[in-house]
Amino acid sequence: MDALKEKIRNEGLVLSDKVLKVDAFLNHRIDPPLMREIGEEFARRFAGEGISKILTLEASGIAPAVMAGLELGVPVIFARKHHSLTLTDNLYTARVYSFTKQVESNITVSRQYLGEGDRVLLIDDFLANGKAALGLIDIVQQAGATLVGLGIVIEKTFQAGRAELEAQGYRVESLARIASLTGGEVRFVD
Amino acid sequence: MDALKEKIRNEGLVLSDKVLKVDAFLNHRIDPPLMREIGEEFARRFAGEGISKILTLEASGIAPAVMAGLELGVPVIFARKHHSLTLTDNLYTARVYSFTKQVESNITVSRQYLGEGDRVLLIDDFLANGKAALGLIDIVQQAGATLVGLGIVIEKTFQAGRAELEAQGYRVESLARIASLTGGEVRFVD
Repeated sequence: MDALKEKIRNEGLVLSDKVLKVDAFLNHRIDPPLMREIGEEFARRFAGEGISKILTLEASGIAPAVMAGLELGVPVIFARKHHSLTLTDNLYTARVYSFTKQVESNITVSRQYLGEGDRVLLIDDFLANGKAALGLIDIVQQAGATLVGLGIVIEKTFQAGRAELEAQGYRVESLARIASLTGGEVRFVD
Repeated sequence: MDALKEKIRNEGLVLSDKVLKVDAFLNHRIDPPLMREIGEEFARRFAGEGISKILTLEASGIAPAVMAGLELGVPVIFARKHHSLTLTDNLYTARVYSFTKQVESNITVSRQYLGEGDRVLLIDDFLANGKAALGLIDIVQQAGATLVGLGIVIEKTFQAGRAELEAQGYRVESLARIASLTGGEVRFVD
């Protein structure tokens, strides 16, 4: 997706060989027209798959997921990273290790909103080691729902996430695939 | 906003005289077309105000804020409730007490994305005691930006938030105003 790659080139910050910061348009400040384009692109790639729900993870997955949900005409569920007093029982729960924050946390989804008949598209902002994606997949499996695939905004192809997901048979669609961040420069695949 | 009120009537859960749970369409599962209508309504109410940025709070403020940003043609910044390793310095910080979670937490916004020339619309999912709104206002003031007003999805008029915000001279626009939740029933103002 060219508009996304251009945005990454112009506004992304390479913090290390492994860390790309995109607070300028995705992770802190959000660019709404770009999110709409991203949502439309996910909808195009997964059209005809009979998707019934989109599942994402708070907070940075919400904007692209909602735009995709608008386009596909399906609701979006965001898994929560922390419990609140108004969401305590009847939960699917998975453990996710965050390399960025260096903590393991629970993610949760209410059983009420995801079940056996569902065909689920997972959407997330980044795919790196795939830990968040695997946590979300765990929840889809607990629900007995069908995982149609994963829509990723930015993939770091030099980390192991895609390999692990494809080894499990899942379809991964990433809108920007980064080959490397070495030398402070973003290189895309292709 | 009639579509929103109908959604609250049909899918909202009254947990107590003070707590309304709207996980069915806003706080956990998100209804994208409703979010678009909400964004359009905020844009209509604040049209002509020269808004340059929308500021909201993760996670539940993001969907309505991004839809409003799309309509108004301005970026959205979501304040963060927790620090991550990729967002550590040059921050505006405010303390916010959450009655729902019964904890005080920091909310932060990068100095880079909010400054003196900005005319800011705050958007949030709920207005109750106004603590989150006051934290966001604190950040707008630290930035030297101008607060144009507050766009609230659901206001609990029986709590003190609006009175405190109006006493400070701020314009508050709420799309659904709840008069009471007593007896397990939602009553709207008007």
